[in-house]
Amino acid sequence: MSATVNDLQAQVDRLHHNLQTVTAQHELATQEGDLITVSDYLLTRLEQLGVTSIFGVPGDFNMRSGNQDYIEDHPRIQWVGNCNELNAAYAADGYARIKEHSVGVVVTTFGVGELSAINGIAGAFAEMVPVVHIVGVPSTLQLKTRPLLHHTLGDGRFEAYMKAAQQVTLAQASLMMKVNAPAEIDRVLTECITRSRPVYLTIPFDLVGEQIPAKRLTVPLLRSPPLNDPEVEAYVIDSIVKRVEEAGQDVIILVDACTIRYGVREEVLDLVNKTGFPVFAAPMGKTAVSEQHECYGGIYMGSLTDPGIKDRVEKAKLILSIGALKSDFNTGMFTYSIPPTHTVELHSDHTLVRYAQFPGIGMKLLLPKLTARLEEYRKGADRVIVPHYKPVIPQEADTRISHAYLWPRVGQFFKEKDIIIAETGTSSFGLFDIPLPDNAIFLSQVLYGSIGWTVGSLLGAAIAARDLKLGRVILFVGDGSLQLTAQELSAMIRYGVTPIIFVINNEGYNVERRLHGMYRKYNDIATWKYTSLLTTFGDIGGTASRSFTVRDKASLNRLLEDPEFAKANKIQLVEVIMDKYDTPRALEAGSAMSMLSTQKSSQ
Amino acid sequence: MSATVNDLQAQVDRLHHNLQTVTAQHELATQEGDLITVSDYLLTRLEQLGVTSIFGVPGDFNMRSGNQDYIEDHPRIQWVGNCNELNAAYAADGYARIKEHSVGVVVTTFGVGELSAINGIAGAFAEMVPVVHIVGVPSTLQLKTRPLLHHTLGDGRFEAYMKAAQQVTLAQASLMMKVNAPAEIDRVLTECITRSRPVYLTIPFDLVGEQIPAKRLTVPLLRSPPLNDPEVEAYVIDSIVKRVEEAGQDVIILVDACTIRYGVREEVLDLVNKTGFPVFAAPMGKTAVSEQHECYGGIYMGSLTDPGIKDRVEKAKLILSIGALKSDFNTGMFTYSIPPTHTVELHSDHTLVRYAQFPGIGMKLLLPKLTARLEEYRKGADRVIVPHYKPVIPQEADTRISHAYLWPRVGQFFKEKDIIIAETGTSSFGLFDIPLPDNAIFLSQVLYGSIGWTVGSLLGAAIAARDLKLGRVILFVGDGSLQLTAQELSAMIRYGVTPIIFVINNEGYNVERRLHGMYRKYNDIATWKYTSLLTTFGDIGGTASRSFTVRDKASLNRLLEDPEFAKANKIQLVEVIMDKYDTPRALEAGSAMSMLSTQKSSQ
Repeated sequence: MSATVNDLQAQVDRLHHNLQTVTAQHELATQEGDLITVSDYLLTRLEQLGVTSIFGVPGDFNMRSGNQDYIEDHPRIQWVGNCNELNAAYAADGYARIKEHSVGVVVTTFGVGELSAINGIAGAFAEMVPVVHIVGVPSTLQLKTRPLLHHTLGDGRFEAYMKAAQQVTLAQASLMMKVNAPAEIDRVLTECITRSRPVYLTIPFDLVGEQIPAKRLTVPLLRSPPLNDPEVEAYVIDSIVKRVEEAGQDVIILVDACTIRYGVREEVLDLVNKTGFPVFAAPMGKTAVSEQHECYGGIYMGSLTDPGIKDRVEKAKLILSIGALKSDFNTGMFTYSIPPTHTVELHSDHTLVRYAQFPGIGMKLLLPKLTARLEEYRKGADRVIVPHYKPVIPQEADTRISHAYLWPRVGQFFKEKDIIIAETGTSSFGLFDIPLPDNAIFLSQVLYGSIGWTVGSLLGAAIAARDLKLGRVILFVGDGSLQLTAQELSAMIRYGVTPIIFVINNEGYNVERRLHGMYRKYNDIATWKYTSLLTTFGDIGGTASRSFTVRDKASLNRLLEDPEFAKANKIQLVEVIMDKYDTPRALEAGSAMSMLSTQKSSQ
Repeated sequence: MSATVNDLQAQVDRLHHNLQTVTAQHELATQEGDLITVSDYLLTRLEQLGVTSIFGVPGDFNMRSGNQDYIEDHPRIQWVGNCNELNAAYAADGYARIKEHSVGVVVTTFGVGELSAINGIAGAFAEMVPVVHIVGVPSTLQLKTRPLLHHTLGDGRFEAYMKAAQQVTLAQASLMMKVNAPAEIDRVLTECITRSRPVYLTIPFDLVGEQIPAKRLTVPLLRSPPLNDPEVEAYVIDSIVKRVEEAGQDVIILVDACTIRYGVREEVLDLVNKTGFPVFAAPMGKTAVSEQHECYGGIYMGSLTDPGIKDRVEKAKLILSIGALKSDFNTGMFTYSIPPTHTVELHSDHTLVRYAQFPGIGMKLLLPKLTARLEEYRKGADRVIVPHYKPVIPQEADTRISHAYLWPRVGQFFKEKDIIIAETGTSSFGLFDIPLPDNAIFLSQVLYGSIGWTVGSLLGAAIAARDLKLGRVILFVGDGSLQLTAQELSAMIRYGVTPIIFVINNEGYNVERRLHGMYRKYNDIATWKYTSLLTTFGDIGGTASRSFTVRDKASLNRLLEDPEFAKANKIQLVEVIMDKYDTPRALEAGSAMSMLSTQKSSQ
């Protein structure tokens, strides 16, 4: 089989990389060439990766390091000051999800800052989002002598925070000498972009200003995945093609989270276009392929799936699963009903054909060749009808806004290129099976499910969307979730992004009610004046924002039909008053099943 | 030397403990006696330790565990629902600081919850605050089979969160079997109360309802410290007495953090009363001895100290240092000028006489005997004059509220039994050397210095103060710090506590400006409408709270002299408008020195 462009590119990258290493060794030996500070070296690398904004909270160790100075003085990278570090980590995560092929960056200070951010980093790890966590730490001298500094644990264990970070990051580097700083920075950044997980980098405040050779920066970081063994790859493709032949025309494609995370959207779209195979998505793969594509059939989440779609997926003779991530919420609480004998799974670093595992055979380089081989099945696929799922807005006598009504209704409000962010719980379960317009992007933290994530994430997503000239950014968040991270609305006003924020006011933790304690006080929360949040958090004049409360279907419709509102040229908050015990269909069914998930998941 | 009451009590405790162990073994073998659920066993133990409120955020693992149900149903323990987990951990910390000899308790859920709280737990570890972190985790079966559950890292490493917790807690227990649940619960709780550090306890949701023997609960947990070796202790006391004799009348006592943390306030007060030695306090020991005590001389913080006090401390022939914690901010950036040859240091688990170390000789049991021996020096000490530090309110032509003016002025507003909480930075440095009334309590996170801590901590402190019928709770927090954790004002309104909250509005991170980047944008923050926070966060009618803005000395004085305001029968927020670049004396000097702390600390 002849090498593809991806193959050749990968080989070129590798040669560059070797050259780079030799060059660096030479320079460090000779100190030849231009010099640059450690901080500017790092910022230049981040800029090369497409970073235009860095999130964080200043602290004395990261400021005294001058790190913040370098960022603030950088001509093309913006410092975004967050209210707290958890929100900053969430923002970096949201930024990275929208800016595909780039990374999110969060800067915190030693101990107090980094530990406040760690849950946001853990979420990025679980959901495979490339986030770089940069921590300003005490001087190289202090790291050796370990005085009883503020922000320490008081017992000299300066390494404790790094040990915690090791649990939730893919790679770590603690810079201690300028001589290996460039290599260490490049190592963790390369891990971050090629394996799409967070990395952790500490910089002592006396090291950031040190001068190091700049020449290495002329060679870009290695991006491409490891090469597949050509013989094994050929064998795998043959056996996949064989499965497809056996299945006749009855093949479907199921896309999931890693299609987006490992950058194979284009390859997958090409596969769909050239084969015409029907394509479905798991919740975490939602919008990996446009939900308006002629071949798109809808969302599959096991027994929570719309019956028509469920039938179509589970009856297929062969399922080409791409980038699957089979978590409980992503699989309808482990209720897939697909026999392994009907399955081919493509992953970032391995492939499964029925029961056979092929480690080291990654989808990025395999997909184009597979597509080339499967094109001939186009004709057959054409005859397969894909049922296009159209949610209907129910006719309800009751004027109150029900979940059954809300989600299909807002579905009609969405436009091309909109970014829709859904908080874990009622919002995500409400939106999973609402088809979105062409080029719309759907964000939700389905696996890690840390409530409050969407608010910080929205800030990062909105700033990235502004860079990329994408459409409106629209958030759906419950009142309980909003309260965890509400102050970050302040940064949105401060940095001039104009999202639309729908706050579901149902007096508490609805998703928790479904799981346990329906009528328990601990699922209640304080009642806030949500429509005052934007003016309290910085729009003191009230000119930069608009806030609304909608209590019934009529007022909701009036707002959604208001062209001024739809323009989204100011930050807008909409409080949606809903029944305390109402919930979306999928969540109701899902939570019922999650009661059984102990048993299911353990089988 | 004859045994003291403390000695005998310690021996009695030990015998009880042995009895307890035997009893437990017998019961687990025979399953005799009444049964109780694991959850109620834990709650009963906490109640025995004086716990009346438990803080946290519900999550499916800790709710499905029924844990929250047990708490909500408990007749004498109140569930306090926080806006987020970091705030909940801070609240547990503040609760424990006020409720001495008890513990603070925070309940979170697996992964997303516990990691959000970890920075609060780390702060409690650094500052030696007894906090119990209870985490609801997946079922015992899931912990073994490790399905791809939400809230996990997606790679089956269910132990990752515990490994992170090990870095910032003294002891951990992961309950997996009911048979050893009582012993494990007792083990971590005993560690927590005797060594005054946070502990970590995970409970699978299928274990909480399991029945276990209750009899063990009839034996209280072991509280007393390890016994001192009588011979070594006698030798140590002799050599301390010898130092005192050599010093003639010129002996002073310096109290610090661990005087409070390890429960020796009474023993120290007895020592001061019976010897009449002048007593001074490090910032972290502030109010360990009443600042109105006739022998009290003021706050010592190295070269940041008021000259008169500095002289008095550093010229003394012998310094009896009790519970010292020599961190940078607590020692005026490592500027103690006290020769070891003039020093005796008493600690919780060891003693230092000049250069000689005596491991295992703890102050709790040593102090009463030392006091008995030193009483005879009373006569001499009487002749020592202690200069009583009285801060003066400067006469300033400028009507603006300066730091030089603010701190002495609010000093006059404080009353007996008030609890004063100061955020790290301008507030703590402003208040360190303001003498507080009798029985007032001062709280500040001087060592760990995580900004935003005071807001969550205030909630816990206020709830504990209400239990103990203490006085008003008064917070001083900067605008920058408030923004990290502001939403917890909501819980204060919800649970009906009525603190007074002074918000220093100086447009950003003042303490950071002093340290680095005086005029940098990254030290600016969004301008909030602080006087709208309380109505936005739950006092929608505006009847439960009052908010004020003071821009000049006159309006500040009017407010402080208003009897209605002083009553503090509603939650009140006071925005104090101050100059962006003004700062307290101690902070200005301190930050200047901290520039040098790299060198100093490394010598």
